[in-house]
Amino acid sequence: MYNLLKGKRGIIFGALDPQSIAWKTAERAHEEGATFVLTNAPAAMRMGSIDVLAEKTGATVIPADATSIEDLQNLVDKAQQILGGKLDFVLHSIGMSVNVRKKKAYTDLNYDFSVKGWDVSALSFHKVMSVLYNKKAMNEWGSIIALTYMAAQRVFPDYNDMADNKAYLESIARSFGYYFGKDFKVRVNTISQSPTVTTAGKGVKGLGGFLNYADKMAPLGNASALECADYTISMFSDLTKKVTLQNLFHDGGFSNVGMSKEVMDIFTE
Amino acid sequence: MYNLLKGKRGIIFGALDPQSIAWKTAERAHEEGATFVLTNAPAAMRMGSIDVLAEKTGATVIPADATSIEDLQNLVDKAQQILGGKLDFVLHSIGMSVNVRKKKAYTDLNYDFSVKGWDVSALSFHKVMSVLYNKKAMNEWGSIIALTYMAAQRVFPDYNDMADNKAYLESIARSFGYYFGKDFKVRVNTISQSPTVTTAGKGVKGLGGFLNYADKMAPLGNASALECADYTISMFSDLTKKVTLQNLFHDGGFSNVGMSKEVMDIFTE
Amino acid sequence: MYNLLKGKRGIIFGALDPQSIAWKTAERAHEEGATFVLTNAPAAMRMGSIDVLAEKTGATVIPADATSIEDLQNLVDKAQQILGGKLDFVLHSIGMSVNVRKKKAYTDLNYDFSVKGWDVSALSFHKVMSVLYNKKAMNEWGSIIALTYMAAQRVFPDYNDMADNKAYLESIARSFGYYFGKDFKVRVNTISQSPTVTTAGKGVKGLGGFLNYADKMAPLGNASALECADYTISMFSDLTKKVTLQNLFHDGGFSNVGMSKEVMDIFTE
Amino acid sequence: MYNLLKGKRGIIFGALDPQSIAWKTAERAHEEGATFVLTNAPAAMRMGSIDVLAEKTGATVIPADATSIEDLQNLVDKAQQILGGKLDFVLHSIGMSVNVRKKKAYTDLNYDFSVKGWDVSALSFHKVMSVLYNKKAMNEWGSIIALTYMAAQRVFPDYNDMADNKAYLESIARSFGYYFGKDFKVRVNTISQSPTVTTAGKGVKGLGGFLNYADKMAPLGNASALECADYTISMFSDLTKKVTLQNLFHDGGFSNVGMSKEVMDIFTE
Repeated sequence: MYNLLKGKRGIIFGALDPQSIAWKTAERAHEEGATFVLTNAPAAMRMGSIDVLAEKTGATVIPADATSIEDLQNLVDKAQQILGGKLDFVLHSIGMSVNVRKKKAYTDLNYDFSVKGWDVSALSFHKVMSVLYNKKAMNEWGSIIALTYMAAQRVFPDYNDMADNKAYLESIARSFGYYFGKDFKVRVNTISQSPTVTTAGKGVKGLGGFLNYADKMAPLGNASALECADYTISMFSDLTKKVTLQNLFHDGGFSNVGMSKEVMDIFTE
Repeated sequence: MYNLLKGKRGIIFGALDPQSIAWKTAERAHEEGATFVLTNAPAAMRMGSIDVLAEKTGATVIPADATSIEDLQNLVDKAQQILGGKLDFVLHSIGMSVNVRKKKAYTDLNYDFSVKGWDVSALSFHKVMSVLYNKKAMNEWGSIIALTYMAAQRVFPDYNDMADNKAYLESIARSFGYYFGKDFKVRVNTISQSPTVTTAGKGVKGLGGFLNYADKMAPLGNASALECADYTISMFSDLTKKVTLQNLFHDGGFSNVGMSKEVMDIFTE
Repeated sequence: MYNLLKGKRGIIFGALDPQSIAWKTAERAHEEGATFVLTNAPAAMRMGSIDVLAEKTGATVIPADATSIEDLQNLVDKAQQILGGKLDFVLHSIGMSVNVRKKKAYTDLNYDFSVKGWDVSALSFHKVMSVLYNKKAMNEWGSIIALTYMAAQRVFPDYNDMADNKAYLESIARSFGYYFGKDFKVRVNTISQSPTVTTAGKGVKGLGGFLNYADKMAPLGNASALECADYTISMFSDLTKKVTLQNLFHDGGFSNVGMSKEVMDIFTE
Repeated sequence: MYNLLKGKRGIIFGALDPQSIAWKTAERAHEEGATFVLTNAPAAMRMGSIDVLAEKTGATVIPADATSIEDLQNLVDKAQQILGGKLDFVLHSIGMSVNVRKKKAYTDLNYDFSVKGWDVSALSFHKVMSVLYNKKAMNEWGSIIALTYMAAQRVFPDYNDMADNKAYLESIARSFGYYFGKDFKVRVNTISQSPTVTTAGKGVKGLGGFLNYADKMAPLGNASALECADYTISMFSDLTKKVTLQNLFHDGGFSNVGMSKEVMDIFTE
């Protein structure tokens, strides 16, 4: 629509199906003139329909397990070959808690599950950036974004150990963002999105009630996946070059509301 | 450059001279297809060269004392007449501490000066929004931005009572943003910018040493006035519709760095 | 009970009646061995029963309008004379919004009321510290506390312009705390207390519903006035010497909970 | 000194030698009338002199690897037997990064080292609380504290992956604190301490220069290990019952200072 990403090259992790924020971001990046590679874990790819997206956006799909340095090295090498140069943007939209899937209570975690979920959801972001950094694969003024959730700051009980994983993820953004900024003039941020009805989000218990609550609290209502894609595009564009090490709330204002009239009315009755 | 603000109408407060962030924002908004009214306090206008900017950007200048409801009502009425409809964006870039100007120490303020500085720097933002709100002058999905500084969160001794004024200003953004969101789907945010060499900024004592320090701490270095204008454009665009009630750091990462190698080297010697 | 404040001298602002946090703090400070002066605005004193408290705690009452430098100078001079030396602790528990009292909407404030409320609720804290600082009235390792509310960080619509006043108050704590720390080794903090049923708090609209909500969100439930007094005592004691420039939440955990099971159940039905 | 912990029982992790914050806390807890069990990893115990402390404070030492649920179960069972009842306080002062020890750069981590450091420094806190929770081993109004560092919020490059571990640790405090509050009325907080010259802290590169910088920034200077012990005692006492889910800065004000005169002078020269 605006040519905001004209000539820019990137990698997008985590587009599973048309409800995914990463899927919407890929569509919007394509509209804005970017070229990119799509990637997902082999297992996730079997479940999803990423080939449809690839065709629509002229993207190549390169499977990669984001916890495997070898896979990531292959991904980053091939992406640069296919796209014809260094990268300008990367979206990390990956998260999974085995404890949530297996319905383990937070007070009774299986620690093998914890390690796996932390590796997939948090440490993978370090691994991705480590490969990009050591291969010098990012252009100056490139932009790296990971999606996160406010459970990293406040308790949402059903979010379980994903809260702690997201806190670790957001810390990685700061820690690695320091080096990416100093050494390559690349910015690293996280976007903390409203609860969103995605295939991944559906696993969270009681999501319906929570979406309702959040929508009543947020002055602008919950943000949709498409709106998150739009915001991500702005963070990939050249308009936001000096924003880095930040956790950016994209949530209709939810994060800074303590009480709304709508919720108050329910408790006053 | 991108037509990001095509068809959008706005008011820009605080463009004094070509170093002003508001001046750069006006230039960039013009390039992005917006039409707008420029405004400043009558006193500020005598010092500045706003007419040059007005001519360059096709804008009309309407003087207004931002502490005067009457002036603001006149401004908002005329702006809508001239621009042909309701407004889509407003930039509040106004700040002045009489205590700083008169070199009063923070521990020995003149409270008449405090009241004046608070009214100009902070309460004026409430007044601007109050007039916009009560005149129903903003279009849905409009965007209101005020510029602020990190002294609202952490002590920078030379910033004096402007720190407290900025804290009040940022609170107004949240408080009024709640109503603007619920009632008109308008977002309100503040941008917390790097220390910047502007005519206003020059009044701050020891600015040179501080700019040097901040630049050594920030992974991407200090953000310039033009970069701040770019970021403001992104916040006025339709890409950021669900960001509201936020204080957005635009500072090359300074806010989230506790120590940098460059500063450490100086203290290790 | 513990002799935590044995030999310490202080001033306590804002004890109106036995529900007041300041009242409970005076009782607890007395139990812990402190001597102190009680003060209130002349108008507030007519409404309250401060003499009962004074008798119970062996305190002298010195009326003072906390917006009047002259009154504060008299207060600080006399307090030192009566108590026999410099001061070790000060509690600022003062707040009042004329806009709330007069039922003005936040979107339609009377700005004369705003100035008055800001002066009483926020600037008074600067004035108190300014007099203490310039009279060198605090002992080393003394402790100054002001009470505040989380509306300074997040929107609680019925809190109106008190939210902005509290943001300014908290900023003063940081700004003045810097100088008090560097120059006199005195710490300055704010305690951000749960919504509390006090005579002052009763003015806030819909307080009942909100108390209910907050109690259901906070893992430990709302904090009472007496518990706040206990916490304040700990902040006056020698156990917390290096805590300064902080805003300390005393709220049963409310501030860091995004959702509780109890509230979720209501929205899931 | 005050009998603040009279009759209270606890477990203290991490007292290695007299420089340790945990060591000082044990000494102070003993002075305040508490009885407790000391514990450390078997490897750490061989290096340290914990038996001296045990004798001085009348404590029993029970070795436990804090990453081993089995060891922790044994520890919690025996502690209750020895002390004669449920526990009132627990201090987690454990942290170790293999990447730091092995001088791996943050941009080139060994991920096996990352897993080990995360397990020891962060996940161990979950394991400790999980055992306490499931054994119902804490009394009502008990208090659990973990020590942390501000690198969880801002970048201190030499802190390496401990920054991310501390972010995870602080998130655990909130997540588990929710359940401990709701189900047992137990509070959980982290204390974010100044950089401290401890045997553990000595491993951090360039600590001397950083201590100097932090001391010049903090209005009250850096907090010592003994002062941290005092603060921890206040958090174990009954004066702070409703403080929970908080990260409490104990740092002489460092965290809320952006610039001090002393540092400014160096950069202005």
